[in-house]
Parts: sequence; C-alpha cells; structure tokens
Amino acid sequence: MTFYQKLVHHHKKISRLEHLEAICGWDQAAMMPEGGNTARSEALAELAVIKHELSTAPYLSGWFEQANSEQLEADDVTSLLEMQRSWQQANIVPAELVEKKSLACSKCEHAWRTQREKNDWQGFSQNLKEVVELARQEAQIRAEATGLSRYDALLDLYEPGMTTHELDKLFSEVKSWLPDLILQIMERQSQDISIQPVGPFPVEQQQSLSHALMTKFGFDFNHGRLDKSMHPFCGGVPTDVRITTRYDEADFTSALMGVIHETGHARYEQSLPEKWAGLPVGKARSMGIHESQSLFFEMQLSRNELFIETLAPMAAETFQRSDDPALSAENLTLLNTRVKPGHIRVDADEATYPAHVILRYEIERDLIEGKIEVEDIPELWDKKMSEYLGVSTKGNFIDGCMQDIHWTFGAFGYFPSYTLGAMYAAQFMVSINKEMNVDNLVRERNLQPIFNWLDRHVWKRASTVSTDQLLIDATGERLNAQFFKQHLEQRYLK
Amino acid sequence: MTFYQKLVHHHKKISRLEHLEAICGWDQAAMMPEGGNTARSEALAELAVIKHELSTAPYLSGWFEQANSEQLEADDVTSLLEMQRSWQQANIVPAELVEKKSLACSKCEHAWRTQREKNDWQGFSQNLKEVVELARQEAQIRAEATGLSRYDALLDLYEPGMTTHELDKLFSEVKSWLPDLILQIMERQSQDISIQPVGPFPVEQQQSLSHALMTKFGFDFNHGRLDKSMHPFCGGVPTDVRITTRYDEADFTSALMGVIHETGHARYEQSLPEKWAGLPVGKARSMGIHESQSLFFEMQLSRNELFIETLAPMAAETFQRSDDPALSAENLTLLNTRVKPGHIRVDADEATYPAHVILRYEIERDLIEGKIEVEDIPELWDKKMSEYLGVSTKGNFIDGCMQDIHWTFGAFGYFPSYTLGAMYAAQFMVSINKEMNVDNLVRERNLQPIFNWLDRHVWKRASTVSTDQLLIDATGERLNAQFFKQHLEQRYLK
Ligand SMILES: [Zn+2]
Ligand SMILES: [Zn+2]
Repeated sequence: MTFYQKLVHHHKKISRLEHLEAICGWDQAAMMPEGGNTARSEALAELAVIKHELSTAPYLSGWFEQANSEQLEADDVTSLLEMQRSWQQANIVPAELVEKKSLACSKCEHAWRTQREKNDWQGFSQNLKEVVELARQEAQIRAEATGLSRYDALLDLYEPGMTTHELDKLFSEVKSWLPDLILQIMERQSQDISIQPVGPFPVEQQQSLSHALMTKFGFDFNHGRLDKSMHPFCGGVPTDVRITTRYDEADFTSALMGVIHETGHARYEQSLPEKWAGLPVGKARSMGIHESQSLFFEMQLSRNELFIETLAPMAAETFQRSDDPALSAENLTLLNTRVKPGHIRVDADEATYPAHVILRYEIERDLIEGKIEVEDIPELWDKKMSEYLGVSTKGNFIDGCMQDIHWTFGAFGYFPSYTLGAMYAAQFMVSINKEMNVDNLVRERNLQPIFNWLDRHVWKRASTVSTDQLLIDATGERLNAQFFKQHLEQRYLK
Repeated sequence: MTFYQKLVHHHKKISRLEHLEAICGWDQAAMMPEGGNTARSEALAELAVIKHELSTAPYLSGWFEQANSEQLEADDVTSLLEMQRSWQQANIVPAELVEKKSLACSKCEHAWRTQREKNDWQGFSQNLKEVVELARQEAQIRAEATGLSRYDALLDLYEPGMTTHELDKLFSEVKSWLPDLILQIMERQSQDISIQPVGPFPVEQQQSLSHALMTKFGFDFNHGRLDKSMHPFCGGVPTDVRITTRYDEADFTSALMGVIHETGHARYEQSLPEKWAGLPVGKARSMGIHESQSLFFEMQLSRNELFIETLAPMAAETFQRSDDPALSAENLTLLNTRVKPGHIRVDADEATYPAHVILRYEIERDLIEGKIEVEDIPELWDKKMSEYLGVSTKGNFIDGCMQDIHWTFGAFGYFPSYTLGAMYAAQFMVSINKEMNVDNLVRERNLQPIFNWLDRHVWKRASTVSTDQLLIDATGERLNAQFFKQHLEQRYLK
C-alpha cells in the first residue's frame, strides 16, 4: 500500500466516524427525548476524542511527507492537498488551547441562553471576553502557520481562500449602494397592500406540501428524510441527508421557504461525487458555496414570482383554500418579497440581510485583529445598524449584539459566508441564464436543466478546485458583487 | 487512579461507543431510507472494529491482574468480576476465527433470505454447515477456557450459569406434561366461538392506543420512544430506550401485544441502576431474564382476562367501535388466549411456544456437541414437531427448519432464553401474588405495586447477582418449571 493509499484509508475511517456523529447529532435534535441528552452528549464527546486522536495521529506527518514524494495522478494530488489542508488545520492549534477554548465556549453559550432573555450584556460580555481572548490566541497561531493575517486565518476555516482584503472590497462596494437601494425598494413597496394568511395551517398539510416541493426540487428520498426540529438544519451524510424544519400553524410560508432552503443544501450533499466519498476533496467546497446553493433554491428560484405561480395553487389545494385571496400568487409574491429593515438577522429579507452580515464582519474582524474590545461592541452595533438600516438598538442587547449564537462558540469568520452565498448564487444565475431561459423553465415547471447546470458546475466539483477557480470555470470570472446588485434591482425595482 | 478505576473508565468509554451503535442501529431499522444502507453498514462496522480493539486491548490483562489485588468494596468486587467475565468472553476466541465466522454468517444469512422463499434446503444447508463448523470451533475454544461443555460455553453467552444438565432436566419435565396439556386445552377450546375483528384499524389510532398502554405500563417517554420498523425490537440505551412495532391495519392486537411485550423489555432497561450505568454489572442479567420481563408484561399481565377488561374499552373507544362485539372483553380474551399448534415459532401461543423452543434446543445442542450433522436436521425437526405438537413439516423447510434467522448468524444457545423467560415470569408472578393480590390490582387498574416488586427484585439488581441468586432472592428458590405448568393450567384449564 502506498502512503497515499494509507492516507485515503485513514480519512475514510474518520469519515465513517463522522457518519455516526452526524446521525446521532441529527437524532439528538430531531428524535431524542429530553432525558436522553446527558448520555448522548457524553457519547458524542467520546467520539470527538477518538476522531481527534485519529486526525492528529503522530504518524500522519511522516505519511504526508512520504505521500508527497510518490508518483500520483493529478486527481490524487488534489485529493492529497485537501487531506493535508484539513490535517494542518486540525494540528496547528495545541490540544491545550483547543480544550480551553472549548470549555470557555460551552460556558459562554450555556450562560448566553439565559443572559440573552434577561438582556444581561454585563454578564455576557465577561464570558465573551474570555472566548475572544482564546480566539485571538488561536488566530495568532493559525496566522503564523499559514502566513495569513489573524482574521484571515479564521476565515480560512469556513471560506478557504477568502481574505479580509477581498471582503473589504466586496462589502464596501455593497455598502456604497445598499442603504440607498433599500430606501428605494421601501418607497416602491410603500403602496403595496398584502393580506396576511390566517391559520391554522395544519402541520400534516404543511408536511405534505413540503414533501411535494422537495420532490419538485429533486430531493432524493431514497437518500434522505425531512423531519422536525427546534432549529432547522441540514445534517446527515451524503448518502442519507437529513433536513429538518419547524412548523408554525399560524404561518406556512416560513417552514416552506425553510424547507426549500435546506433542500438546496441537501441536493449539494446528495450530489457530491461518489468517487471522492469519505475524503476531504469530496466534501462541499466551503460554507459560502454551500449557502449559495440553499439561497439559489430559496431566493433565486422560489421567491421568483413565476415560481410562486406554481407554488400558490399547490398551497391552495393542500390547505383546501382555493378561494382564499391570501393564497393567491400575487399576494404570496408580495409577502415573499417584502423588504423591511429590522433588528433580527434570521428574520431579514434578502435585501437587508447583507447589512446584518457586513456589520458583524466589521466587528469580528476588528475584534480578532485587536483593534476593538468586547466593550466596544454595543456602541458599534448601534452605530452601524443606524447607518446601514436606520434601526436603533441602543440598550437593546437581546435584539442587538446578543441575538446570535455564533460568537458564543467562538465561530469568528463564519458570518461572511451568508452574504458570499447570496452573491455566488446571483452570479451563478446570470451564467445559467446565458445558457437557458430560466424564467421560461420555471414557467414550464421544468427545473431539471437548471439542476444539471448546478450539478456540473458546483455539486460534482466538490473540493477538487478552489472557490475562485470554481467561480471562474462556472461564470467566467471571480466573485463580482455587481451580479447581486443587479439581481436585487431586477427583482425589486423593475 | 487505581487499576479498578482505570477499568471503570475504560468500560464507560466502550459503553459510550455502544450508545452510538445502538442509536445508529435503531435509526437503520426505523428511520433510514434504503439508499443509506451501505454507508451506514460501513460506519457501524468501523465502530465495531474500534470497540473490539478497546475490548481486547493488550494492557487490560495487566490491569485486571492489578485490580484483583486491590482493596475493593464488596460492590466493586462484583463489578470487577462482571468486567472480567465480559473481557474474557471477548478475548477467548482468536480474531481470525471471529472474522471467519462473521463472514460465513453474513454469507449464510444473506443467502437464507432468498433460499427460504424458494424452500431451498440443499443450498441453505451448504452454508449452514460452514457456520456450524465454525461455531463448533468457537465452542471448543470457549469450553477449554471455561471448563464448560461445548454447548454450555455458548449458552453462557446468553444465559450465564445455565447448563445443558439443568436445561435437560427442566425441558424433559415440560415435555412430560406439555403435549397432553395442549390436547386438553384444545379440547376445552373446541367449543369456543370467537369473532375475528374486521379492519381497517387505522395506524394512527393503533399508535395512540399503543401510547396509552405504554403509559399505563409505566414507560417513561422522557427516556424513550415508540416507532415503526419491519421487525419489532427494543433498542437504544437505558436513558433513551427505543422500541418499535409493525402495524397491520387488518389486525390491531398483534401490534398491541407486541408493544406491550417490548414495553416489558423497555422498563427493565429504563430501570437499571444509575449507579452502575455504563458498566457490565449494570446491564440486564441475561437474555432469559430480559425475556421474562417482556413475557411478564405480555403474557402474565396482558393476556389475563381481567386486564383485557381494561384494554377492551380502550380499544373500542380509540377505534370508535363501542358496539362492535369483536372488541368486547370476552371476545378479545378468547382471541388472546387461543391455543393452536402451528408450524411457526413467532406465531405460537404461550402454551405451544415451549415445544418450538425445546425442539430447537435439542437439535442445536446435539449439533454443537457433534452428535448430529446438519443433514440430520430436517428429519429430526419433522419427528419432534409431530411428537410435541402433532404437526408435520415433511419437505416444508420454509415453515420448518428454515424459518428462523438465529442459526444463520451462528447464535447457537440463544433459543432456550425464550422459554426460560416464560418460566421465570410465571415464577415471579407466584411470588408477587404472595405479597399482593394481582388480580385485584389489575381490576383496580393499579399496576404500580407490581412494577415496584419487579423494580426491587429484578430491574435494580441488574447483573449484581447471578441468575440463580436473583431467583432465590426474589422467589425463595431456583427456577422451577412447576410454576409455569400451574400458570398454564390455571389460565387454560380452570
Ligand atoms: Zn443555509
Ligand atoms: Zn422479547
């Protein structure tokens, strides 16, 4: 067996443990009764230890050295590089710091759940300081090992290749037109009169509508399921993708759009190349590309008024409300394209969402680089919210800087993925439209050619190329925020 | 850390991996879409390897030696002994033989699934011979290491302490009265006229009735769930017990009695002592004791006509059939206490069931001891079926010696547990009746005192005592088949 083959074998072993982790994690969120939680958490922690031991086994260093001098096919060179990248990421940070950070994050996250409800910034900021301090240490170590800046070294964990330099450029461009665009859209929509559908919309009917839409979007039920959980997510493994949603009997569109969003994530996972199953090169390219697929399904396709013309009669039939004007295509389009600045990121529409992300990016970047301190966050938050969205959060931490879980578990560098995803999705759509008429296909209810394009240009590429290269191969250029701007203008100002 | 403590730590680690195995195994049977099977099986196989490595780690031998010379509390001595017992069982058989047997069993079981349908004894017996040959080798090795006879060494895996000598005595006693008793019961029941309930009984209603009964039987839904699977089972972990059933819309009693049976298994698991969680001494005592709990729930309690007086109105209400005579207590009692010899073990009633088990026991005992060969099975099967139950299986392998899965995967020594369970259950009931009037409690729908007795005498004892000791402490004597005979006579000939 060559050293490359040994590494392949080793990574497939890790991947099989990730399989168990994914299924038991899904079960914990979707199936497990409350009383099972302690033992489950212990079992998953044990598995994490075993996985960590395998990922950081001392012999791997020698194996990589040997494998690098072996004669390999071009494909295998790429695969080896991705193995090495994930191995380095797992090995750079000393075990002691990993553990310290993990403890601080657990403590911070746990306390945050009650502190948030009490608007207790003082209490929360004490814990967050610890987390930030350890994240800075981690960033420093990763920066030294990679030659990247501190924040970029964290960004690299979620969006490999992306840099502060690039993000500053992209986001300052967005900032130059977004606030004004939002005002224009609001002005346009000020005369719109929409009707709020009145529930109850029984969970069972919502489920059957969700299944019907998932089928329309090509979800493979032989390799996946839809279930319920408190916080919707896409989990499981490529051969068995588990997506979840949360049903609200008063409002069916939130679950529905959520299901379509997760179906985008799911199809990416279900369509990853079998050839590379269980290896780093066979995984999704990045968080941003993953989000681009869910947002492509949700924003590019499903909030298109032409698609809502398909959706509306399905909903009316499922809920047996053929004469309910609230379920007309026109009304559902108004509801699903409503732009309105608000405090909460997860409730934001696609036009105001980037403002929430840019604000977080700017704060976490400066926090990690040591340019600001935790104490500075509330004031900066309020200032930026006012500037970008005209919303005040003074003294309101619940709906301000305490609303998200990300920082509590030290995931600095994650937020940009959301808006990168929206921008990638818009750019993909422009390229697809050069090859086919998407509006016509949506009108004809024939989405297959669109999925085929995504499969060829995104899903089947997995991590065999860099994000930049994937974009260039798929769209002829690197990420360009103009496409996202055009998308918003076309949809909201046409 | 003492060596005893190191062993405790080690076994809890194994137990946490068993947790992941149990949940992913449950998921495979109850949730997983077909397409997920290959990757799931690989992931579980990987986990089995890791578990095996831990269970057979070379350093354990020294740890046990050291721990045995440490000063330990009496409780901990017991715990250490149980750890050592399971360690020895896992280490006696050479890895090479384990693997060979595992491959032969996979092959045999896989082929059996189609061979059975085709009544292909010739094909099946070829594979079975290989399995028997390897099981004999395993038995030989286990016999040498334990000083037991070959079959007893296998029996010890499922029913520690039980021996051929004891089983021969118990079963020959049963054989001396059972065939005649069955005839007498059939004579008695020959004039009974029962009405077969006519479906459909919607799955949802059966589910809600199942939940109601599980609640009545004390199932803790904060530490468990009920779901569907092809083959009903009780899985999961003590803090999160997963039972499954299969619903037939034409017949609600089979799922219902199945759910009650699994609830008996579940309560045992849910009630194991927390103090010993994750250690061998904290596990259920044996397969036979486990089955005694499910059969206590199903046979001793639920097929009691007084209990059916509670059950019948619940069913009638759930299915909205208050005037259906098929759902009257009298009729449901007739249906649920019907004795009728048949070919199939899993379809047998409690009176004919032991005949199925004794037949299998006698054959597998002689097979392992080398007194008969695979070729002899069909003739012996037919002879014994005729003798014990008056049923011919000549040339009918599907409904004869090819009906069970157990031998295909080499589980020789398992079958006796079923009937031992029925006998333990009858003996427990007699003792309980000395402390309280069970019929009155059932009439008053107050089962709690009965559960308290089981909790104290069976569930909380886990594996802290031998089965013999458990029986003596609970009932004043070792297993005595007379109690089972009395139970059948009282129920069927009174
Ligand atoms: Zn998403
Ligand atoms: Zn059972």
